[in-house]
Formats: sequence, structure tokens, C-alpha cells
Amino acid sequence: MEDVFTKYESNVRSYCRKWPVEFVSAKGSLMMDKDGNFYIDFFDGAGALNYGHNNDYIKAKLIEYLESNGIVHSLDMHTKAKRELIKFFEKKILEPRGLEYKMMFPGPTGTNAVESALKLARKVTGRPNVWALMGAFHGMTQGSLSLTTESAARAGAGVPLNYVTHIPTDNYIPGFNSIAYMRQILKDDHSGIEKPAAIIIETVQAEGGINVLSNEFLQNLRALCDEFGILLIVDDIQVGCARTGNFFSFERAGIKPDMVVLSKSISGYGFPMSLLLMKPEIDVFKPGEHNGTFRGFQPAMVTAKAGLEFMLNNNIEAEVKRKEKLLAEYLEKEIRPLLRPGMDIRGLGLIWGIDFKNGKLSRKVLDECFKERLIVELAGRDDSVLKIMPALTINDDLLLDGVEIIKDQTVKVLRR
Amino acid sequence: MEDVFTKYESNVRSYCRKWPVEFVSAKGSLMMDKDGNFYIDFFDGAGALNYGHNNDYIKAKLIEYLESNGIVHSLDMHTKAKRELIKFFEKKILEPRGLEYKMMFPGPTGTNAVESALKLARKVTGRPNVWALMGAFHGMTQGSLSLTTESAARAGAGVPLNYVTHIPTDNYIPGFNSIAYMRQILKDDHSGIEKPAAIIIETVQAEGGINVLSNEFLQNLRALCDEFGILLIVDDIQVGCARTGNFFSFERAGIKPDMVVLSKSISGYGFPMSLLLMKPEIDVFKPGEHNGTFRGFQPAMVTAKAGLEFMLNNNIEAEVKRKEKLLAEYLEKEIRPLLRPGMDIRGLGLIWGIDFKNGKLSRKVLDECFKERLIVELAGRDDSVLKIMPALTINDDLLLDGVEIIKDQTVKVLRR
Amino acid sequence: MEDVFTKYESNVRSYCRKWPVEFVSAKGSLMMDKDGNFYIDFFDGAGALNYGHNNDYIKAKLIEYLESNGIVHSLDMHTKAKRELIKFFEKKILEPRGLEYKMMFPGPTGTNAVESALKLARKVTGRPNVWALMGAFHGMTQGSLSLTTESAARAGAGVPLNYVTHIPTDNYIPGFNSIAYMRQILKDDHSGIEKPAAIIIETVQAEGGINVLSNEFLQNLRALCDEFGILLIVDDIQVGCARTGNFFSFERAGIKPDMVVLSKSISGYGFPMSLLLMKPEIDVFKPGEHNGTFRGFQPAMVTAKAGLEFMLNNNIEAEVKRKEKLLAEYLEKEIRPLLRPGMDIRGLGLIWGIDFKNGKLSRKVLDECFKERLIVELAGRDDSVLKIMPALTINDDLLLDGVEIIKDQTVKVLRR
Amino acid sequence: MEDVFTKYESNVRSYCRKWPVEFVSAKGSLMMDKDGNFYIDFFDGAGALNYGHNNDYIKAKLIEYLESNGIVHSLDMHTKAKRELIKFFEKKILEPRGLEYKMMFPGPTGTNAVESALKLARKVTGRPNVWALMGAFHGMTQGSLSLTTESAARAGAGVPLNYVTHIPTDNYIPGFNSIAYMRQILKDDHSGIEKPAAIIIETVQAEGGINVLSNEFLQNLRALCDEFGILLIVDDIQVGCARTGNFFSFERAGIKPDMVVLSKSISGYGFPMSLLLMKPEIDVFKPGEHNGTFRGFQPAMVTAKAGLEFMLNNNIEAEVKRKEKLLAEYLEKEIRPLLRPGMDIRGLGLIWGIDFKNGKLSRKVLDECFKERLIVELAGRDDSVLKIMPALTINDDLLLDGVEIIKDQTVKVLRR
Repeated sequence: MEDVFTKYESNVRSYCRKWPVEFVSAKGSLMMDKDGNFYIDFFDGAGALNYGHNNDYIKAKLIEYLESNGIVHSLDMHTKAKRELIKFFEKKILEPRGLEYKMMFPGPTGTNAVESALKLARKVTGRPNVWALMGAFHGMTQGSLSLTTESAARAGAGVPLNYVTHIPTDNYIPGFNSIAYMRQILKDDHSGIEKPAAIIIETVQAEGGINVLSNEFLQNLRALCDEFGILLIVDDIQVGCARTGNFFSFERAGIKPDMVVLSKSISGYGFPMSLLLMKPEIDVFKPGEHNGTFRGFQPAMVTAKAGLEFMLNNNIEAEVKRKEKLLAEYLEKEIRPLLRPGMDIRGLGLIWGIDFKNGKLSRKVLDECFKERLIVELAGRDDSVLKIMPALTINDDLLLDGVEIIKDQTVKVLRR
Repeated sequence: MEDVFTKYESNVRSYCRKWPVEFVSAKGSLMMDKDGNFYIDFFDGAGALNYGHNNDYIKAKLIEYLESNGIVHSLDMHTKAKRELIKFFEKKILEPRGLEYKMMFPGPTGTNAVESALKLARKVTGRPNVWALMGAFHGMTQGSLSLTTESAARAGAGVPLNYVTHIPTDNYIPGFNSIAYMRQILKDDHSGIEKPAAIIIETVQAEGGINVLSNEFLQNLRALCDEFGILLIVDDIQVGCARTGNFFSFERAGIKPDMVVLSKSISGYGFPMSLLLMKPEIDVFKPGEHNGTFRGFQPAMVTAKAGLEFMLNNNIEAEVKRKEKLLAEYLEKEIRPLLRPGMDIRGLGLIWGIDFKNGKLSRKVLDECFKERLIVELAGRDDSVLKIMPALTINDDLLLDGVEIIKDQTVKVLRR
Repeated sequence: MEDVFTKYESNVRSYCRKWPVEFVSAKGSLMMDKDGNFYIDFFDGAGALNYGHNNDYIKAKLIEYLESNGIVHSLDMHTKAKRELIKFFEKKILEPRGLEYKMMFPGPTGTNAVESALKLARKVTGRPNVWALMGAFHGMTQGSLSLTTESAARAGAGVPLNYVTHIPTDNYIPGFNSIAYMRQILKDDHSGIEKPAAIIIETVQAEGGINVLSNEFLQNLRALCDEFGILLIVDDIQVGCARTGNFFSFERAGIKPDMVVLSKSISGYGFPMSLLLMKPEIDVFKPGEHNGTFRGFQPAMVTAKAGLEFMLNNNIEAEVKRKEKLLAEYLEKEIRPLLRPGMDIRGLGLIWGIDFKNGKLSRKVLDECFKERLIVELAGRDDSVLKIMPALTINDDLLLDGVEIIKDQTVKVLRR
Repeated sequence: MEDVFTKYESNVRSYCRKWPVEFVSAKGSLMMDKDGNFYIDFFDGAGALNYGHNNDYIKAKLIEYLESNGIVHSLDMHTKAKRELIKFFEKKILEPRGLEYKMMFPGPTGTNAVESALKLARKVTGRPNVWALMGAFHGMTQGSLSLTTESAARAGAGVPLNYVTHIPTDNYIPGFNSIAYMRQILKDDHSGIEKPAAIIIETVQAEGGINVLSNEFLQNLRALCDEFGILLIVDDIQVGCARTGNFFSFERAGIKPDMVVLSKSISGYGFPMSLLLMKPEIDVFKPGEHNGTFRGFQPAMVTAKAGLEFMLNNNIEAEVKRKEKLLAEYLEKEIRPLLRPGMDIRGLGLIWGIDFKNGKLSRKVLDECFKERLIVELAGRDDSVLKIMPALTINDDLLLDGVEIIKDQTVKVLRR
């Protein structure tokens, strides 16, 4: 098996090196390899499978659509599937939350939506500069990559990445106040940093190491943006879609971003899709000013609507909050006491990280977990954070089985 | 119906303005709107539906896979579906053509693959500059957009687009020799233009107005690249996948690019997918140096393999060549005589353009055709080229029905 | 008189708006206008006239040279004047201070030398990024301007300014530790900020508002640069040439920069000249890799040598330290008590600032001072700092006369 | 002697390697080295000494000014010397030629003036892009360097140079029509090249190899700029100041640029100075938007006025035209017949080039000439052009002596 991949697939392949088996099928929170072994999935397609693998409710709608010869691909033509999704999203997701956004289908990947948000922000304000936070990950195409902070990813660009300023988060160095810093730059006529079109954030920095931005920070940032006429963009690609216990991750802070980027779990089924939400008053795009072949992938619109229905029908948001307690309690009681001084546990909803502050240790824990058939990923500085991100639909037993594996392997690795 | 889109979808929506109906289903080369009207499709999902809408052979494989709970989404983990696709592609597509490439799954959109190619070219050579041809379209994310030439698209970036030099094609002004020009720049120590990492081309510039690059040009460009140590990238997103009568569009010239970008019809079913092919010796990527959530969308790998099987089993390449004759003959005999001096007809395989040299005329023809229930798109300078791009599987009758509509509406518009 | 300037000189003219008279001649620290009025000069040609206007010793050498038909202009050909200057500078300035530098004559303006330093730093390290401090001023050509922080100056570029990261100074926000911040960025693989080729500083930020960097900061910065393999560039254009009491402003901290930029007073007589000093091991320039027509302006080399002789013969460094006490004592005793809370007095050697924390107040003081025939300039954020920068040769009486005018006008303005 | 330079001066030194002697004094068109040898100067300080070394008329005015304690350095304050220069330049140079320009003193080097012109053009039009011609040299600071075409100079930047498009000149490849090409780009919505703020040219490309742009090209370019609302900037740094037989080099074509850059010989005496002339209606600079310490170097203003007086009083323009005939005739009759096929002689006024089409040959001729005590420089592609650029005041005998040396050495080198 390995031969085909080693011989023919680019060296760029990555996850397969951590979990070197061939997967065949999956259901819910379990994945099966070709030898019939099952793995608990705490990786969740990097957050794209919030409702589990091959969710039955969604699958039924999808296959029904495909069998009916529904339109599969139509760029941005009007379709029944798109109309139904838009209407559902507006009426059932946005209106109940008091949010008013127009929707853009910018192409099926998160980075495509981020690039669209950058274009729109720059067009609305006439300013080229955009601010992003240190620790941010917003994608790998040139515009998004300029926002992304991981140094190896940036080096891959092969060209200098411009038009972006990176801002430290709170306590980047001890006592650092991020909002005060941004305000000072904006008021200072000798900062050397241009006022931005927008500030883009993840409310929980996922790839950056599960850094939860505080409600206070989010509220102060919204106020700062209002004060200086800067657009606030929330990249909710990884922690939106109920991951943190609310559909939008920023709901906990009671703020309304000017733009919201959704992808990953928005299609509900692992199908490629992204959305850019924008306040109606900033929708100054000209027709076709951003486009892309797969921006009208209809099956994803069908699964997206089905996924949202599933989420609402099954009280997924409440379920996440319930499971968050379960998970947090386990982590605090069972695992934190095992950690060495300086190590940390952080998280929200169903995205948590154990920061071993040492990339070699975290990698060992990952390897040991995989031997025990738990799929779990790393994130953060030096990849030192073990990232726990199960499907939101995981049942309590599997969830606890998974963290128990982590606990046991943590003990094993840290005792060495 | 319109209300939902007008009220909630961003102004950026585009094709729906040309064909303002709501589509519901499709089969082969016909699309049906919600009122039950059928339309002949000469647009073909911008080239993403080469085997027709809802191709039965592919659909069966797809639904079978979905029903089996096959992996849907797995980033770049090893999977059965990916292994089978890679093996099929290497053995049945590349080897018979004498081509040796490694494969990269860079994310499911063409622009993602183009961005990957840019990264790799810059990394391999250490040179930031890349050359693209005037008339080029390579995508809308910042790196790809730097290559793309359409002025409105470029203006949408909101920042200056750098690290790319645009080279005119042959006869850009009368008598202009593109190869001689590039060679002169490369030899001239006072050109002001940095030697590029790569030259990226479409062998038929589709969005640029159906400009067919000559075999001689392609061969000379390959030689030029060899002479100066420059990588040759063929963007075969739109005209690959048998569109021109060979699976790869560059086969007609007998050249071997260093990288090939595939997307659109590579999944065979309108599912988002892209591929970057690279000569093994330039695969210097580090693991994870480019990534993206949806780079392991397995259903597209299943449909891709099925699509390739369908193509081979049904001699699609030969069929394209047969239909090319039919179409070209009609265009030459029936339509060219109607054109005014200066207007032109250009094309290859099943991608053809009627260049009205006037965007208002071409738009009128489009509008009239749509009234006659033919979906056909514009391209090129000033959008003056009516672009004929049916599915490769279209039957002869529908093909001739479609061009007859074009003929009639051309007569009507040009007679005014 | 005004007519000629208003009608024919570009709106860009600036200082003439603050001191709207026509000057005719000058001597030492006095300038005379066309009506025969004398002005005490606390502006000193923005620091280019450290030895006073029309210094007799230098003038004699200059006129002798001109009368002898000495070479005036010779680019970088070998000349007697250049040889004598180089030798004098190496033996009498560098060697006694334990400094070993090669000299480059990059063109006669400071910005030219800064641009050269940028080129060399990037070439030596292969890194495009350079760090500069917030509050910095390094020049107005595109490379230098990228370093300069004043927002109006930057906006004048008309293009985004890239390849530079701006770093806050200590206490930019309360408690901010600049060295700790830089170290964190350098160690953080998710900062989004590329490791720089060089860090460029002014040891006293002059245009930034007379911000004196502490010895501790300078020493820690040198250590940081060593630790991470980053070049340290000191821009000593304004505060070198004995302005702070030592010939080089960084001597007080006992550090050795990798490059030093000199201009302004280096020619000793207000003649255009600049120098780039570089450690011999980093002199990797190829012949002609940087050039410029006026890099061999010989009369400035003659005056430069004469100026250095004058400085040494007259113990100017010691004199500056003596006058510093006089000036600092006056400012502390006579002026600081007049200031409102929050206002500040800062400085070193013979460069001092009174920070009124309010650009309107500082401008009023300037205007009133000019009425009393004192020429004094503004600097810093919102131009709120009155900048006191007399010639180093000013006699004590004139110095005290000048600050007395400032005191009286400060009283007048602050009492309103 | 060599020791001092080799040991202490940066490797970047360049001309001294071609003419490895130490120069001491100079007069008119003769330079003297420290051993008392005289050299005929066909280099003319790279065009900065049009009125010869140590011109008596100018020298007298200069020394008188210095002895009177006239202001030496005053940034952009009003001074008597500046007023007199401005008035003289407006009344005696511009008005008789029907030209109406405001004057800016942007700092004393040509590159400073070019950078100012770029800023103004971008500000006036709001467009970042600027077009320059292949073969251009406009300076070595980052903005100007982006315009400059010499590849080694560009590589020295250490960063990619952006915001500039390079346009080939007529016959860059056989038959190439530069104006037609530019017009096509401007009309083509798929060229990929942004409409520029300005097009900057040298009417005779000096460093580019003495390429004389035709009057027809200049007139058509002026018309093209008018048609598309693009500013035309003439960089007359090297070939202005009567070098081509008229004070401004563009007078021969009867055009009026929107901006003119002057430097080199504008001070008349080899003193650093530059001027930017701009049509009054585009003078939208804000006060201080461009600045620089040495923009008010008064002695250069004194020598500039004296130089202009000298030029007018001595009919230098007419003299240049007379000597042009003499020189051209000699080159055509005596030297062209010696050349091999493909070699060329080009020029205008008193700037001529012999293009040996081979950098090794041209260098040999230079070396041989220097042995015969003629100082002559190279230019152009591969440095293959021997550049003949004597002072405009050279007497006929010295001129003919110089070209005779060139003839003899050419014979010697080409016969080998």
C-alpha cells in the first residue's frame, strides 16, 4: 500500500505520516482501516466533520438529491438548492441570533473565503493593510498566507508576504495588553504601521495552540474597530458551526463582526464549501469581482441545509455545552495533575488543548495514542499542544474512552 | 424566487444575471429550470462537466461509495479511494502517454493548485518572479490573481499584485514574436525583468478569448525553458481532461511540462477537486508546506477514477476529435460567412469562440440565445467572444441544435 | 520676495513656512536675514552644522582646495582628498575608539547611505525583512521611507511600503519591554514576523521626539543581535558627530554596531556627504553594486577632514559634555517647573526636547520664539516636542539667551 | 597609496578599478594624477561637469559667496541664493523656451529627484504603477532602482522591486513598435499590466548604451500620455543641461513633459544638486511630504546660477551643435569603417557611443585608451559601448586628440 503513496504522491503529504495506515470507511466518531481496525477520531477532519462521519440524516438528503439528478455544479447560477439553503440560513440561523448578513459563496475552501474577505475589506475602506493576530492561521493561498503566522508555511510562499501587520495577543510577553497596543498604534502618527482595512481574528486560535480569546478582548476589539472605522472579520472556519457551544463562536461575547468566514463543517458532511457573511452595507462587490469554478457545488448546499437542520433538531449547541463540562472536568481532574509545571490545558466547547510546552513530548503522546487507536492531532508553537477536537455528536463513552487513552499515554510519556 | 437571491446573496453573483432563471435538475447536456423548461448547455459548468451532468456511470460509483460509508473527508491521510485513484491515474493516464509525474492534492479548487505550483517553482529555483501570458486566467486568490490578466479581477485585489511579469502572445501587436521577445529579455542584462522561476500557460487561453497557442509556440517555449533553466507549467484546468481531443491539451505539441495543473473536470462529476502534477525531481516540498482542509475529499477521488474509466471506455478523446470536425465545419460554413470583417472564429476540440470584436454584440447574441434556451457564455477582451463549450458527451443532434440557435441569433443581431 | 517662492517653488517647501524670512548670511550660531536681523540658531541645519555656520578653520581649508583646482567631482575614483580623509578617519577617529570599519561613500545624502546599509544587510544575510523602531526617521527614498514611521511621510510614497517590521520602544504602552518582545518574536514559530537581516536604530530618536534609548537597551539589543545572527545598524546621521558628547552616539553604551550611517555634520560645513561604515567581514559588495553620481564630492571630503581636525583640536566632545550640564540644568530648574503634568523634558548632549504633549502648544511656542529671533524646530508625535539643537560650538551666552527666550515664551503660551 | 583604499574602502568602489591612479587636480578637460600626468577627460564626471573642471567663471562666484559667509546649508528655508536661482531659471531658461514649471529642490542627488517624481505622479493619479523603458537607468535607491534595468544593480536591492513595468524600446526585437505596444496594453482589458501613473524616459538612454529615442517616438509618446491621462516624466539628469545641443534634451522633439528631473550638471560645478520641475497644476505636494537634509545646499545654487549664466553667455548650446558635427564626422569617417559588422556608432550632441557588441572588446579599448591617458567609460548591454562624453567646453584640439586615441586603440584591439 505504502508504495503507491511514497512513489507517486508528493512529499507534501503530511497527516499520513502521523497515522500511517490506510483508511477505508468511517461512521460517527470511528474510522476503520483496511485491516478492519477501528480508531476513535479526536481529529474530526480538522473540524470539518462536526456531525460525525457519514451522518445518516444528512446522507439520506444527499443521496436523494443525487438520485434526483439535482444540479451538481452551476457556479453562481440560481438554483433550488441554493435558494433553500440561503433561506434556511437567514431565517433559522441568522434571524434568531439577531444577525443580519448577506451571504457569499466564494468557492469551496476556507482560504477562498478569507481571500474574498480581504478583497472586500480593502475595497470598502480603500486601505491595503490588514491586521492579524500572532498565532493566526487563515489559509495557504498567498493572500490568506500573508495572515497566517506559522513560519514554515510562510517560508513556503517563496516570496515576501506583504500588506499585513501581525499583532500580539494578550500576554504575548508578560503583561502585554493587546487592545491598548492596537489603540496606541492607531493614535500614534509615528508608529510606522498603517491603519488597517480590517482586523481578522479566530475567537479561539486553533492551529495557534487553542488560545481562547477572552470575551472582554472580543468586546474591546469590537469597540476599537468601531472607534477607528476598521472592519472586524471573524474567521469561524474551525470554531464556528457550534464547535464552542454556539453556532457562531463570537456569540459568547455578544459581538457582531462585520464579516464572518465559515467553512469546514458548514457543509455538514465533509463536502467542500465556504461562506462569507457580510453586513449588507459593506457588500460593494461588483458582479464577478471574485469568482471560482466550484462556488456553486450544489450537493454541499444540500448537505449544509441538512446539517443545519440536524444541528437544530438535535440541540447540538446544548449538547456541546453539556459535553464541554464532561470533558473539561476530566481534563482538569484527571490530566492536569499529571502535567509538569508550566504545562497547560486550555479550551472551550469541544476544542481543547494540552500544552506540553515541548514538541517532542507532545509528539510522543500522539504516537502512543495512535498505537492505542486514538487519532489526535498537534497544534501550536513547536507543535507542543495535543489538540482534542472530537465530533460534536460523539457519545459520552467514546469521548471518555478517548481522553482516558490520552491520560494513560501522557502518564507513560511524562514518566519516562 | 429572485427575492431570496437579491436580498441575501452578495452583489458578487454573476452568471445568474445572464441566465436569470432558477435551475433545478440536469442530465447530460440539458438543464431544467423550476418551470420545467429545458436548456441546451454549451457552458458546461465552465468546463467542469466534460462528461455531462449527472453522468450515470459515475453516479453509480459515487452513490455506492457514499452508501458504503466510505471515508468522505480525510485531508491527506492514506485512503483506499486515493490509492486507487493514484494508481489508475499513473498506470492508465500517465504511463501510456510516456509521462512521469508525482501527484499532489492541493485542495479542491484550481486556484489552490496554481498557488501550489507557484510555491514549488519558487522554491525549486529560488527565484520569486513568474511569467504569465497576457490573456491568462489562473484564478482569483492573491498568488493566482497576480497571474490573471483581467483588469477588473485584478483591481478587486485591493493591493498591488507583484512578483509576476506578463508576456504578450504572438501577434499581440502585428508581427510580434513572443518567443523571440522572451529570449531577448532573458539575454538582456538591461531588460529590468527578472529571470522567472517558471512560465505558466494555458495551451488554449479560454477566458482570454479562445486563443489557441500554436504547436510551434509550445515546442519553442519548452526549448526556451530548457535553455534557460525555467520551469514550464501548463494550467490545464479548463482545456485538459480531453477537452481538446487529448487528455492533456499539450499532447498535440509533443511537449512535457514540468508541472501540470488539473481541476474542473478532473473529478468527472462537478465535484471540487484539483491536482498538481510535477516531475519527480522537482518535488522538493516539505511535509505540510502547502495544505488545506478539503484536499482529501474522497467522493471526488471516487468520481475522478470513475470519470477517467468512463473517458477511456467510451473513447472520449476520439469522440472529441470527431465532433470537433462536425462543429468546426458548421462554424466555418454556416457562421463565418455571416460575420463582419475583423470578426473571427477560433478553437480546438470542443472549445470554440466566435469573436464579435464588440462586447455589446456578443452580449446581444448571448441574450437572444438564452431566449431560445441555449446556455452559452462570453469570454475574452471586452467579453466579445461567444464561447462554445459543450460537454464532450453531447450527442450530435443537440450540438447542431445549439449551433443553429447561435447561427440564427447571430444573423438577427448582426442584421440590426 | 515671497512672490518668487510662492509662485515658482513647489508646495512641498516646509521650513520656510515656519520662519518666513529670507536669510542671507550666517556665522557660528547666528543667521542674518535680508533686513539685517540676527537670529540665534537652535536648529543647526537639522544637525548638519555641528561646528557652526561658516566655521573659519574649515572654510580656509575649503577655499584653499578650491583655489588649487583640486578635483571637485570624481565619483569613486581615487583622489588625494579621499585618501587623506580615509586615513584620518581610520587613524584618528576609529582606531582610538577600538573600532574597525571599512568606509563606503554611498552618495551625499543620509538616505543614500541608509539604502546602502539595507542592501548590504539583505545581501549578507539573504533575508529581506528589516526591523526598525517605532518613532524612527531614516530618510525619504523608498527603501529608507519603509523604515521611517511618520505617517504623512509614509503616505507620500503612493505605494505600500514593504519588507520592514516596526518594533515598539520600551514603554510604548505602559510596562512594554522591547527587548523581551523582540526575543519572543524571534523564538516564536507563530509570530508571523520574519527574522530580519538587521535592526536599525537611532540611539536618540530625534524626529521621533528626542527619545533617548537607554544604555541598557542598547547593550541588550547588541546581545540580542549576536544571539540571533542579526546585524545591528546605528543610524548616527543626526546624533553622531559628537552631538551627544562622543563622536559616535553609541559609545556611551560601549557597543559596536555592525554598520554605522553618518551624514549631516560629517562634512563639517553643511556640504552634502554621507558615510557608511561596515565591519570588514560583511563588506560583500560587488564593485558598483551601489553607486551614485555625487558619491565623490571632494570638497566635502576636504571639509570633513578639516571638521574632524577642528573637533579634535577643540575638544568638542568634552565641550558638549560641559554644555550639556549647563543646558540640562537650565531646563530642569527653569523650565520643567513651568510645565503642566504629563509634559516632559528629555535629551542628551546638545539635543534636547520639551514635550508639550500638544502640537498646538508647541507650535505656539515656536512662533513666539521666532518673533524673539530664536530659530527652534518641532519634532515627535503630533509635532509636540520643541527640539533644542544648537551648534556644538555655540558659546555659553548665546545658549543661555536662547533657552531664556524659550522659557519666556513657554510661560507666555502656557499661561494663556 | 593603494593600500588605504584597498584596506579601508568598501569593495563597492568601482571606477578606481578602471583608472587605477590617484587624481589630484583638474582643469577644463584635463585631470592630473599625483605623479603629474595629465589625462584627457571624456568621462566628465558621468555628465556632472558639462562646463569643465573648475570652471573659472563659476569658481569666482562660488568663492565670493563662501567668503561672504553666505548661507551654506538651510534646508528649504528662504534664502537670497535660492531666490536668485529660481528667478534666473524661470526667466532665462524656462520662459524663453515656452515652458512653465514649478521647481522643487528634492535633495542633492538625481535619485532623490526621481523618487520625488514617483511620489508626485502616484499622488496625482492615485495609481501605483509606473512604466519605464528597458535600458533605463534612473538611480539606485529603492524607488528609482525599481525603474533601473541593469540586472546586477537590481539584484543588489536584496528585495523584489515592485510597482514598475518595463517597456521595450523600438526594435527591441526586430520590428518592435514601442508606441503601438503601449497603446495595445492600455486598451487591452486582459494585458495584466496596470495603467501607470507615469511613463519615465531618458530621451537618450545613456547607461543603457547611448540609445537615442527618435523625435517621432517622443512626440508619439507625448500624444499617448495625453490620450490616456498618463504623466510624462523626462529624466534629463545625464543628457539635460545642454548635453544634446539644447538645454533640455526634449526640445528637439518639441514636447513638454509633465515633469523634468535635472541633476548632475545643473549645479554647473560638480556640486551635488538636483531639481524636479513640474507643471504647476500637478504640484499637489503637501508641505514636507518629501524632504531631505541637503535640499538647501546654497553653494550649489550659487554655482547653478553661475553655470547657467556661463552657458548662456558662451552660447554653449550652439557650441555643442558645432562640436557635434566635428565629432560625428570623425566617428563616421575615421572609426565606423574600422568596425566589424554589427558594431555601431550612435549619439547626439556631445554624447556618443561606439557599440562593440562585445564587452571584452570594449573593455580592452578602454584599457588601452587609459594607457594613452584618455579617460573614457563603458555603458550599455554587457558594457559593450564605449561612451564618449567630454565636457561641452572642451576645445576642438583636445576633442580630436581624444577621438584619435580611441581610433588608434580601436584599430589595435580589433586587429588582434
